[in-house]
Amino acid sequence: MTTTKGLTLWFTGLSGAGKTTLAKRVEKELLMRDLKVELLDGDVIRTNLSKGLGFSKEDRDTNIRRIGFVANLLARNEVVCLAAAISPYAAIRREVRALHGDSFVEVFTECSIETLTERDVKGLYKKALAGEIKGFTGVDDPYEQPENAEITVNTENESIDESTDTILRYLEHRGLIPASSAPDISADEEAKIVDKLKAQNFI
Amino acid sequence: MTTTKGLTLWFTGLSGAGKTTLAKRVEKELLMRDLKVELLDGDVIRTNLSKGLGFSKEDRDTNIRRIGFVANLLARNEVVCLAAAISPYAAIRREVRALHGDSFVEVFTECSIETLTERDVKGLYKKALAGEIKGFTGVDDPYEQPENAEITVNTENESIDESTDTILRYLEHRGLIPASSAPDISADEEAKIVDKLKAQNFI
Repeated sequence: MTTTKGLTLWFTGLSGAGKTTLAKRVEKELLMRDLKVELLDGDVIRTNLSKGLGFSKEDRDTNIRRIGFVANLLARNEVVCLAAAISPYAAIRREVRALHGDSFVEVFTECSIETLTERDVKGLYKKALAGEIKGFTGVDDPYEQPENAEITVNTENESIDESTDTILRYLEHRGLIPASSAPDISADEEAKIVDKLKAQNFI
Repeated sequence: MTTTKGLTLWFTGLSGAGKTTLAKRVEKELLMRDLKVELLDGDVIRTNLSKGLGFSKEDRDTNIRRIGFVANLLARNEVVCLAAAISPYAAIRREVRALHGDSFVEVFTECSIETLTERDVKGLYKKALAGEIKGFTGVDDPYEQPENAEITVNTENESIDESTDTILRYLEHRGLIPASSAPDISADEEAKIVDKLKAQNFI
């Protein structure tokens, strides 16, 4: 197992902008580098830590604080924690950042509302625009764009390969993860990584 | 940093039986051995992950599931996670155990209700017996005693030194933590441990 100091990579952006997709891809790359990684996906967290919470500002804030609390527990124990949640309010993102000290990296997953409405993979934008869903971020609920995100990826103009590369290069450059030269791992360790990736349906 | 496979040490028992006190003491001993340790205290978790939950069976179960979810995230990343929560229902403790696979060790912190009522450090038993607090575990709410806890410590008859020793010997014997011979740590690492203990008011 390769060790790092631990950090949280916090993906913020509108629904459908590609936060989870990108986080899963980065997770795979980091696992291949033999790092300890945990992905906290907003939807999964709502099931395990925030059942009963809705989408009012207060409930959203509580949900984000919980993800931040758990992410910090992991990051301070040498895990690379990937958190993917809309996290629309800047103040709470700042609060989570402050909790982490210098082990917090914000990734703004940028995509225009026009493109998201066109893609509309889950059909949610159509419903929100028709007023069938209320309080939908970017339609009738605010999204406060990050002003000082360490990384901005534009999923409208960039391929997922390009966005992933941007993130990995940034982390390497800051020394937060080891450089990409092939890790010196044993056959036994490699088999374990392959098993973990298989269990997550990556390969 | 000394590494372990990671595990959760789950302290269960009545209010006032000494779960948190014992968990803090074990935490200190494990930190002195240069292990990665996190203490999830029931009261702290209620603030950070379970605000809004009450003490109905359903809410208690939800709270315990959340602690179990987070404990498992830590345990599978080579952290020794100490969880201290009344956790009165056997079924949910079994559920949390199942989530962990073989990295779960249950510590039953035993103490008679008579002694707890006499001690009554927080004055809660008096209030519960007077009917001023409803649904108090051990008084008018059930506590399902563990039948197969790996470790039982009796805080009525044992000193905290004895209980701590029982737990550490068990973990060593199972190979879950390294034996107690002085770890080979650098002066720099030792200074960090002392800082961490100071920050937590241990020394």
